[in-house]
Amino acid sequence: MNAKRRPPESLPTPPELIIRKREGGKLTDDEIRYWIDAYVDGSIADYQMAAMAMAIFFQGMTPKETAALTMAMRDSGKVIDLSSVKGIKVDKHSTGGVGDKVSLCLAPMVAACGVPVPMVSGRGLGHTGGTLDKLEAIPGFRCDLSTKQFVKQIGTIGCAIFGQTAEIAPADRQLYALRDVTGTVESIPLITASILSKKLAEGIDALVLDLKVGQGAFMRTLEDARELARSIVRTGKAAGKKVTVILTRMDAPLGRAVGNAIETREAFEVLNGEGPEDLIECTLALGAEMLKLGGITKSEKKARARLIEVTKDGSAVALMQKLVKAQGGDPKVVAEPDRLTIAPKKIVVKAPKAGYVSDIDAREVGLAGVDLGAGRTRSDQAIDHAVSIHIDAKPGEKVAAGDPLATLYVHERRKKAKAAAERVGAAFQIASRRPQVPELVIEAIRR
Amino acid sequence: MNAKRRPPESLPTPPELIIRKREGGKLTDDEIRYWIDAYVDGSIADYQMAAMAMAIFFQGMTPKETAALTMAMRDSGKVIDLSSVKGIKVDKHSTGGVGDKVSLCLAPMVAACGVPVPMVSGRGLGHTGGTLDKLEAIPGFRCDLSTKQFVKQIGTIGCAIFGQTAEIAPADRQLYALRDVTGTVESIPLITASILSKKLAEGIDALVLDLKVGQGAFMRTLEDARELARSIVRTGKAAGKKVTVILTRMDAPLGRAVGNAIETREAFEVLNGEGPEDLIECTLALGAEMLKLGGITKSEKKARARLIEVTKDGSAVALMQKLVKAQGGDPKVVAEPDRLTIAPKKIVVKAPKAGYVSDIDAREVGLAGVDLGAGRTRSDQAIDHAVSIHIDAKPGEKVAAGDPLATLYVHERRKKAKAAAERVGAAFQIASRRPQVPELVIEAIRR
Repeated sequence: MNAKRRPPESLPTPPELIIRKREGGKLTDDEIRYWIDAYVDGSIADYQMAAMAMAIFFQGMTPKETAALTMAMRDSGKVIDLSSVKGIKVDKHSTGGVGDKVSLCLAPMVAACGVPVPMVSGRGLGHTGGTLDKLEAIPGFRCDLSTKQFVKQIGTIGCAIFGQTAEIAPADRQLYALRDVTGTVESIPLITASILSKKLAEGIDALVLDLKVGQGAFMRTLEDARELARSIVRTGKAAGKKVTVILTRMDAPLGRAVGNAIETREAFEVLNGEGPEDLIECTLALGAEMLKLGGITKSEKKARARLIEVTKDGSAVALMQKLVKAQGGDPKVVAEPDRLTIAPKKIVVKAPKAGYVSDIDAREVGLAGVDLGAGRTRSDQAIDHAVSIHIDAKPGEKVAAGDPLATLYVHERRKKAKAAAERVGAAFQIASRRPQVPELVIEAIRR
Repeated sequence: MNAKRRPPESLPTPPELIIRKREGGKLTDDEIRYWIDAYVDGSIADYQMAAMAMAIFFQGMTPKETAALTMAMRDSGKVIDLSSVKGIKVDKHSTGGVGDKVSLCLAPMVAACGVPVPMVSGRGLGHTGGTLDKLEAIPGFRCDLSTKQFVKQIGTIGCAIFGQTAEIAPADRQLYALRDVTGTVESIPLITASILSKKLAEGIDALVLDLKVGQGAFMRTLEDARELARSIVRTGKAAGKKVTVILTRMDAPLGRAVGNAIETREAFEVLNGEGPEDLIECTLALGAEMLKLGGITKSEKKARARLIEVTKDGSAVALMQKLVKAQGGDPKVVAEPDRLTIAPKKIVVKAPKAGYVSDIDAREVGLAGVDLGAGRTRSDQAIDHAVSIHIDAKPGEKVAAGDPLATLYVHERRKKAKAAAERVGAAFQIASRRPQVPELVIEAIRR
């Protein structure tokens, strides 16, 4: 056992700090830093952190407290030093959605435009997928870079994608797992600190956050999303970083691919200058913001043009090939995405009647993917990279009765697969009139 | 390891139940019973209970939920069967104060009047003392009766006093320790369930609760105390028991003795028909209610007269002698309280000016006792039964400059003892006019 940390003489005891927050009081920077350090070394117990998290859920935190919490969590582990890499380092983070494979095309496109992209990504849980799981559909690909390799690769290639190691923001890993089982996830200051602490520990200069809003997202309402966005921008600023939050809709799945190998395929299509319109739009909107923060241009139009250019001239593909090769994967899959194996047998979900697709419940499609084995319900579960769902008809598209709405790619057409297909079918709404499909990008919040 | 309890198929998961309460929803009887059973067997973790307790602090519980919680906690261990003992079994419980030695004279007086008193008592913590600690000032006295001995002794003597064993309401022991370190003590439904679950497990038919209100009490305001009182009476009724709550003031210490041996001395003086006025009044008020609940008489006046009678005719002393003997102690101390050893050296706290004692801060006097070693700040600390504080001038009494306000009895007149004496002195307020000393008993709440 390590020696337990005791509150410095000048600080109140843990129960006194919990009671202060419970009664709506403020915690000082020193108190918050002590709290997080003591939580990580075990001298504040999980049950005290759980009570504090619930008190924070009810009483909130001031911007100053949120910033102190974020920075204490950032400093709970290693803060990567990227000062050896020239340029303004910009990362992108997404709060998670269904079919959200944007990181896989965005990171190499932005890096190909000259902005270094240090990216720490996560795995899927529940109805949303994870970038690491999708990348691991590439034969041989490894996400477990050491910090040294990560820094070196950003210097040489301009981009690296790796998983949050035990060294990065351990307080966040520990607290996130605790919040998940204690009903304390939905708290703006705690979400802010969770997202930003690990991003700040990457050594970035600026961040673009894709904050998903809608039935397939963690944030269901625009009001909640805006509150979180403002908290994140403000806290990033307090930590000396430029942060832009872009609110995008997550009602229907993004693009047409849901799964792992199939999503990587689709992202690589975008790198090759193809791919579905909404995925391209999301990638351009986030990428343009990254180029602007990265000092490449101040013009949205020029930024978008530059991003399109790197998908036409082969430089985005070339950069991703280097990244895949450097991380142990087969680089051929980048220019030839069909090399990525998806499951062999199809189940086609057909339109029960003619009309227009008016809604696809992204959450239900994501959960159908989990049912197939493409995702997990517990963080220790293995996943199947090959099982896939393809959305054949997107919102606004016209279908005749019997036309395919979606196609499931499975290993065997068994009971479980058929039930998943029914779940996908039930996620579709068909209307007699052409629906108004809202713009994907809602707004950007920069302060 | 025991097999872990899983929520029955029909019940939500623990985080879902926490979130329901967090959002202000209600928990069903089955859900609450599952929750408590699973907490006791370890399948619901301390951190989940802590988050739930904090959610309950903010959202409260309905009377139905509070009753379900109380009964689930009662049933978490053994419920003593006192059906073999004739008569209506009535216990008394106090929420704790400074100088509160009422149980030590009340229990034998009521039992001597013919009402069986099964009493489960506690130990002191913080500024308040505990009945068990005071009784253990009697040489040889043992509080660790088995359930069998307890039941037998109530049948033969009419009264037994023992400590809450691991068998009695283990959920309460576990939850109380958790609440103490997670800032979740001050919740009406949780306090209600804590007090009543262990009392109901004693096998009682009725209960009188002395709910202390004031600066020396857990409940500082009359409003909070009334809310708790109503919750306790209502919950007792739901469990099929008659419960009366008597609100009494705890601004100044009760009686003149604060410590362990010295308080037992004072309580035994009451048994012998002597003792300070406020202590007698508190004992009579609670005792009369117990006689009424025990079916001895419906008249307050007759009940009080009967209680005084047993202190005059020697039957209260005789009963307590039997009890002390049965529990291994020296029975001589009951009729001759001075046999109880108190520390030999005196420090006299003198009045700095002439006037009337207008206030004695009971909490400060209690904490001075803890400083001397008469109490504890952690539940695993040993205590010193001999160190004592005697209040020489009570509120309303006239003093000249230099008159004794209080006398500390210590082993050595060292720095620590002198600091405690200063603390006691600072607890006294002296006014130039005779203050209005309010009645000790505020009111009785029976529904």
